[in-house]
Amino acid sequence: MSGISSIDGRLFGVGLGPGDPDLVTIKATKIIAAVPVVAYFAKKGARGWARAILDRWVTDTCLQLRLLYPLTTETHFCDPAYVEELRGFYTKAEGAIATHLLSGRDVALVCEGDPLFYGSFMHLYVRLKDRFSVEIVPGITGMSGCWSAAKAPMAWGDDVLSVLPGTLGHAALVRHLGAADAVVIIKIGANLAKIRAAIAEAGRLSSAIYVEHGTSETETIVPLAVKTGDHAPYFSSILIPGQGRRP
Amino acid sequence: MSGISSIDGRLFGVGLGPGDPDLVTIKATKIIAAVPVVAYFAKKGARGWARAILDRWVTDTCLQLRLLYPLTTETHFCDPAYVEELRGFYTKAEGAIATHLLSGRDVALVCEGDPLFYGSFMHLYVRLKDRFSVEIVPGITGMSGCWSAAKAPMAWGDDVLSVLPGTLGHAALVRHLGAADAVVIIKIGANLAKIRAAIAEAGRLSSAIYVEHGTSETETIVPLAVKTGDHAPYFSSILIPGQGRRP
Repeated sequence: MSGISSIDGRLFGVGLGPGDPDLVTIKATKIIAAVPVVAYFAKKGARGWARAILDRWVTDTCLQLRLLYPLTTETHFCDPAYVEELRGFYTKAEGAIATHLLSGRDVALVCEGDPLFYGSFMHLYVRLKDRFSVEIVPGITGMSGCWSAAKAPMAWGDDVLSVLPGTLGHAALVRHLGAADAVVIIKIGANLAKIRAAIAEAGRLSSAIYVEHGTSETETIVPLAVKTGDHAPYFSSILIPGQGRRP
Repeated sequence: MSGISSIDGRLFGVGLGPGDPDLVTIKATKIIAAVPVVAYFAKKGARGWARAILDRWVTDTCLQLRLLYPLTTETHFCDPAYVEELRGFYTKAEGAIATHLLSGRDVALVCEGDPLFYGSFMHLYVRLKDRFSVEIVPGITGMSGCWSAAKAPMAWGDDVLSVLPGTLGHAALVRHLGAADAVVIIKIGANLAKIRAAIAEAGRLSSAIYVEHGTSETETIVPLAVKTGDHAPYFSSILIPGQGRRP
């Protein structure tokens, strides 16, 4: 591990799970209680449910480093200015974390769900991994939280399960919906009408389940076919369970 | 919930995670410590790593119900006699658990990984769910444990991630490997040679990572291209990380 100093602090990427504070792992609670610095991503104006978990497990002397996302309203990833702004944000966050690590302080960067599964943690991991020692603590994914809350057995036997971002185009959604036995669609938000049309075209509307805020107190679970309106929060998901072999 | 009596016990399907006893959730430990009966699946002659987790969290007075799988060596799912034997096993297990529930005792049926993701728990869930109150506690999946151990960021931005059982045929593997950005192949075992050939045919051998016993003390992580031999345990997996957008 050339280039990594043993006197520097270590970086922990810690998954906090899908929302219910009791769905955090023993390992995550131990690390959060032990490190002198906990860093977390936040959006302006939103307290974030991760705070409830942190409040329970951090020590009073722990320094909390808030990494505030740039405003994302009405901008898109294909907008070069937005990409540039995000890049600047990650570079600044990298610097803030590196300062602590270089001072010998361990840092836990916590995140919703699992750190390496569509997580913002990955953007800092790739920036810091060659200079510092990093340990990853997996978390319960949002999708596991959703299918557990919906009590929907998702994948059986030889089922192929595909995770599809709702940001994909209509044709790609239809194609993937037709190829997989079990499907989880994430990142719903403003894409709901398009996703619903793709699911209907793939002939899978009758088995699709809509889950909003899974495992939290505001959880909503309904068949997609009866969900009215095309509004959905970004952190909602759609589950189409597999029907694989079962003795 | 007609047909479900409030004086009967409740069934908890509890995921224990990928292997590391510290990767169990707070919720799982609370339930295991509270219930009078813990049921678990076991294979003849194998103690099973789940025991280490149970030993730490069950109370002394907790009754432990071992559900012993029928022998599976040299038999296949397509063998009708094997399917019949499995069906008999699940029916017997259903009866054993129902007896406790009907006596008003809560039962936690624990399992590796996540209960509703390729888990044996599902076979008992579908048999018991209409008669008893059931709660599902998600667990860290084996694949999350593996990509965390390998420190492999798996899915970014608009990546499609597909989970492929290694039991699929060569042509199906090649097709799915070509369609997804990120791929996890589970159930390796005797299928390794076939899987390796399919990955090579799909042109993805150079980015494939082989993980054996992820998060356990006997963990092995190597590029698939340098793994020698065609032997692998059933609970190994192959990861092909996505390369989606990153600012």
